[in-house]
Amino acid sequence: MIDVGIIGGSGYTGGELLRFLMNHDHVNVKTVTSRQYNRINISKVHPHLKGLDIEFEDVAADKIDADIVFTATPHGASMNIVPELIERDIKVIDLSGDYRFDSINKYEKWYGLKHSNPLESVYGLPEVYREEIKKANLIANPGCFPTGSILASIPLVKEKLADKLIVDSKTGVSGAGIKPTEATHYPNLADNVNPYAIINHRHMPEIQQEVEKFGDVKVSFTPHLVPVIRGILTTIHTFLKEDVTSKKVKEIYEAFYNDEPFVRICDFEEIPRLSAVRGSNYCDIGCFQIDHNDRIVIISAIDNLVKGASGQAIQNMNIMYGFNEKESLDVIGLHP
Amino acid sequence: MIDVGIIGGSGYTGGELLRFLMNHDHVNVKTVTSRQYNRINISKVHPHLKGLDIEFEDVAADKIDADIVFTATPHGASMNIVPELIERDIKVIDLSGDYRFDSINKYEKWYGLKHSNPLESVYGLPEVYREEIKKANLIANPGCFPTGSILASIPLVKEKLADKLIVDSKTGVSGAGIKPTEATHYPNLADNVNPYAIINHRHMPEIQQEVEKFGDVKVSFTPHLVPVIRGILTTIHTFLKEDVTSKKVKEIYEAFYNDEPFVRICDFEEIPRLSAVRGSNYCDIGCFQIDHNDRIVIISAIDNLVKGASGQAIQNMNIMYGFNEKESLDVIGLHP
Amino acid sequence: MIDVGIIGGSGYTGGELLRFLMNHDHVNVKTVTSRQYNRINISKVHPHLKGLDIEFEDVAADKIDADIVFTATPHGASMNIVPELIERDIKVIDLSGDYRFDSINKYEKWYGLKHSNPLESVYGLPEVYREEIKKANLIANPGCFPTGSILASIPLVKEKLADKLIVDSKTGVSGAGIKPTEATHYPNLADNVNPYAIINHRHMPEIQQEVEKFGDVKVSFTPHLVPVIRGILTTIHTFLKEDVTSKKVKEIYEAFYNDEPFVRICDFEEIPRLSAVRGSNYCDIGCFQIDHNDRIVIISAIDNLVKGASGQAIQNMNIMYGFNEKESLDVIGLHP
Amino acid sequence: MIDVGIIGGSGYTGGELLRFLMNHDHVNVKTVTSRQYNRINISKVHPHLKGLDIEFEDVAADKIDADIVFTATPHGASMNIVPELIERDIKVIDLSGDYRFDSINKYEKWYGLKHSNPLESVYGLPEVYREEIKKANLIANPGCFPTGSILASIPLVKEKLADKLIVDSKTGVSGAGIKPTEATHYPNLADNVNPYAIINHRHMPEIQQEVEKFGDVKVSFTPHLVPVIRGILTTIHTFLKEDVTSKKVKEIYEAFYNDEPFVRICDFEEIPRLSAVRGSNYCDIGCFQIDHNDRIVIISAIDNLVKGASGQAIQNMNIMYGFNEKESLDVIGLHP
Repeated sequence: MIDVGIIGGSGYTGGELLRFLMNHDHVNVKTVTSRQYNRINISKVHPHLKGLDIEFEDVAADKIDADIVFTATPHGASMNIVPELIERDIKVIDLSGDYRFDSINKYEKWYGLKHSNPLESVYGLPEVYREEIKKANLIANPGCFPTGSILASIPLVKEKLADKLIVDSKTGVSGAGIKPTEATHYPNLADNVNPYAIINHRHMPEIQQEVEKFGDVKVSFTPHLVPVIRGILTTIHTFLKEDVTSKKVKEIYEAFYNDEPFVRICDFEEIPRLSAVRGSNYCDIGCFQIDHNDRIVIISAIDNLVKGASGQAIQNMNIMYGFNEKESLDVIGLHP
Repeated sequence: MIDVGIIGGSGYTGGELLRFLMNHDHVNVKTVTSRQYNRINISKVHPHLKGLDIEFEDVAADKIDADIVFTATPHGASMNIVPELIERDIKVIDLSGDYRFDSINKYEKWYGLKHSNPLESVYGLPEVYREEIKKANLIANPGCFPTGSILASIPLVKEKLADKLIVDSKTGVSGAGIKPTEATHYPNLADNVNPYAIINHRHMPEIQQEVEKFGDVKVSFTPHLVPVIRGILTTIHTFLKEDVTSKKVKEIYEAFYNDEPFVRICDFEEIPRLSAVRGSNYCDIGCFQIDHNDRIVIISAIDNLVKGASGQAIQNMNIMYGFNEKESLDVIGLHP
Repeated sequence: MIDVGIIGGSGYTGGELLRFLMNHDHVNVKTVTSRQYNRINISKVHPHLKGLDIEFEDVAADKIDADIVFTATPHGASMNIVPELIERDIKVIDLSGDYRFDSINKYEKWYGLKHSNPLESVYGLPEVYREEIKKANLIANPGCFPTGSILASIPLVKEKLADKLIVDSKTGVSGAGIKPTEATHYPNLADNVNPYAIINHRHMPEIQQEVEKFGDVKVSFTPHLVPVIRGILTTIHTFLKEDVTSKKVKEIYEAFYNDEPFVRICDFEEIPRLSAVRGSNYCDIGCFQIDHNDRIVIISAIDNLVKGASGQAIQNMNIMYGFNEKESLDVIGLHP
Repeated sequence: MIDVGIIGGSGYTGGELLRFLMNHDHVNVKTVTSRQYNRINISKVHPHLKGLDIEFEDVAADKIDADIVFTATPHGASMNIVPELIERDIKVIDLSGDYRFDSINKYEKWYGLKHSNPLESVYGLPEVYREEIKKANLIANPGCFPTGSILASIPLVKEKLADKLIVDSKTGVSGAGIKPTEATHYPNLADNVNPYAIINHRHMPEIQQEVEKFGDVKVSFTPHLVPVIRGILTTIHTFLKEDVTSKKVKEIYEAFYNDEPFVRICDFEEIPRLSAVRGSNYCDIGCFQIDHNDRIVIISAIDNLVKGASGQAIQNMNIMYGFNEKESLDVIGLHP
């Protein structure tokens, strides 16, 4: 049994961490912090967690006593909290972007912030870094777009089949967080499709960094907000560098993800769909179709709040502690 | 460990039964029938169940070997299947309307069908009939609208506080089933609110039958289809027959549902909402506000496919076999 | 040709006024004010008005030169603007709640504000007050819920068929305005139904005030936010005071609204639906079904931004100036 | 005044033709055919057209007496109707795919049908073929995806800036027609994004045919169904063949569409959005951003039922008869 703390528990990723951890056999949720909702029952913010006897607490990071802490804090805030925890030998899984980059320069360029506290971290994508995660003290939990994009790309790049990826993502709006904004205003989003950050989304360099470890590749990325609550469907278009069949590509993906508990390769007649992964930690990958111009299409589907955030964070925790990797995450998608 | 069969497994209620039963510690799903999808993996119809190694089978009811069978068959079909199973000492939980009425006449009037095989059954609403369910061989699983409406009404009726209920329900479209129709056609439903069966929905006499067991009452019912996938929000309006405070009414409800594992009474400042119960077996009840005309408003929220169908069916099974009533149903709602 | 000013043109009602006025043959839009967007082209806020050469101006009310001004300002703000305009002999159509009540007390009770500048006004519901509107200088444009509720109720009340109305409304979210809030946050509203202001919505006393002019009646009102952009569907439930047929009730409504250009009575087999009135100034009324408990159901559908706000305001202007009442409003609903 | 017939008036494109033609000053709608709804008022199918005194008629094409006929018939059906009309000197605007291809072979390959009646036709994209349209007897009205894709591509291709286009479209579901199918079933589409016909949609060769007239280019096309009623947002990704700035590209587009009444080029800070064109005949084009990999993104937005079908058909008719090209089409988009 380990003691868990959640810093910044009043957002969507906090709610999702709690949804899963409640059913985790080896975890005791000890502290859930929130400045705004101090001493308020969590169900006032997370109505689905009604009945759980947990209150938010306004506790500073240096007062938290736990074996592991999830920092569900915005980028820029995490870097001021994490080092203190690490120093006190508390393991940390950080859900912000603060520790995802190999290079401080890259971070500062894309996030427009000075990084005050660089630390050694492991990029928490289990399908790539499982061994490193086992030994890590600080996990930089991947971004939502990067999770679906990287998983859908790397087998292709590793086999040197592609060198220019066009990543066209369609995302649900919960990724924008719990705070109302113009982008999340119902009349602006419903019955609409809103492309944004067309060429300069922060997740682009994160995808680039991880994919290029598998081969020479240039990533072009454009996200679109669609009238969906949860889920990211990513369509990757690339022109094949050599002659290969759909069947062969599918085999490459199946081999690559052979034993992965949360990656499912779709049959040819299936297309990944958001409802199949809704609320679950699965990443479905499929399509593999090749057109008359040698363009191949790879499609992935994840729940941005689960495999794209809190579910993956718990998967990382399970790996770090040697728990069954699926513990508490063995949830089936909510379709329809 | 008991063997379970599902007759008619290719609809939404079949998919939901499987979603929960997969995580049930005392159940072995032995047979899932479908004429149309014989020998097809269930994930071709239920994409979220991808990875489960189960195929639909075209097996006649009299060939099914199981301890208990869920008949997820349309009304009119169940009555031709259930008697045969009961005769062979197989317990049955029927999700159709065929065995819900005390009187054949009422059934035949409202369903417009001759009932060929009346049998003794127990109305499977655990909050009312738990003791009878324990000993039952045939459970008539309640309709979706009745579940939310009855639970929201009976404490009030029992206390003789109301005698004319206006039940105005707003339902998600999954209740209409997996087969595309004009009513479920996206351009007809999205951005619309479609009242239907304004005064003569089949679930009205079912609500009437159960509520009047608690006191003299007349039920008027009107459902509205709203652009929602899952969930029924029911607004009950009634003029109070005597002077009573909101606080008192809330206490009456809390007392009535005191030990119920799946009924949650909301605090005053909360209003039941669909996302709090989405995908879960909870029925949230709240509001209790009284206006200047002595009208009281009671609101309930359920997931029509769970507490309104398959979840409640499994709750009934758990009661019948003395399992923990929450076994496999301890799922938290998917909000947002 | 008359000169028109719009005060507060950057909200949804401002956008809708412009959408119609652009096609009005007798109107010159002279000034559209906005403090926030001074000197910005209106299409930056209203993207559909792209191509119109109009900029917002930050002009004080006392500097506006126009024959008529629409005050699309929040309640509480209008009362500080309108008197000045009226004094300068500018006609005013006020879209706020500031001038809708017969009694200051009622306003102050329900709006929680001191009313500084009471003035004589005409309640701008043409179907009831057309003659008064012709001669008015100040029109209090009706609220959105009241428009649909009053029109659906008054023939019944006038015939003394009903004395207790239960008004259960389902509204699209554009009624909440252009400013993002928790209530309009996409993940909170999509796939949900959110009742609010269950017994004390400000529009209740407005409905009560107008309906009781036709007979003794008590109005109980509850609104629900549904995942819809535009439109209010109102379901009125009432127990009939005398024996009457659906056919007879329909005839009463047809007679009452005989020559009305914007009220359409539905045939029996039709139910009013939001898409039939979307973007248009029509109010569709129908249903008239009576159940076994003598409850009758009347349903109305409007577009809350059009007949429920800006369209009705223009209809009032057309009446005031003797223009064709349908001028610029002859727009067909956008279905699907 | 010309007499107009509509063959196949009970679908969405039929409804849209009527919505506009009702307000056309030079048109008399003489016949609207439907086999299924013979002698039924059109408002039973098109609820927004309530109040129009028009009935569907089951009239054979050879009995239709009109100056011009819109054939809103499925592909494969048009080819059996159109020749007869043309022979009788009736002008035809065909909304199916039957006459869009330069080559019968291409049609037969992509539509899987034998073409029985090839005829000379003009591809009805006014921005390209206005002069030919003026003299045409038979217009092949463009497909919905091609309209948005071609308009967004051709200035770039003409300037030899691109030779491999990746066209990633997101479409509302009304394009799938009025008949319920699995793809249009609300629970399948809501909260989902469904890619389909990934590499072999019929509109791909239509886009290819028209775009290659402006330069050497290869078109790769993938459509996605999104939870939207109306509208197609098309994201075109291509790697630039020479160094050019966003500003220069925008100027190229502005020059190309300089006098076009229905193409609007967006400013840099604007992104085309569906609500800005909803219900209107506009095609908004914008973005023009270029990333670090020399990928440029061009985005277009249309209403698939208007500029993508019926609105464009009426625009063609206006051109054929020398009417004002905007007659009856001067409708502003419905935002929000």
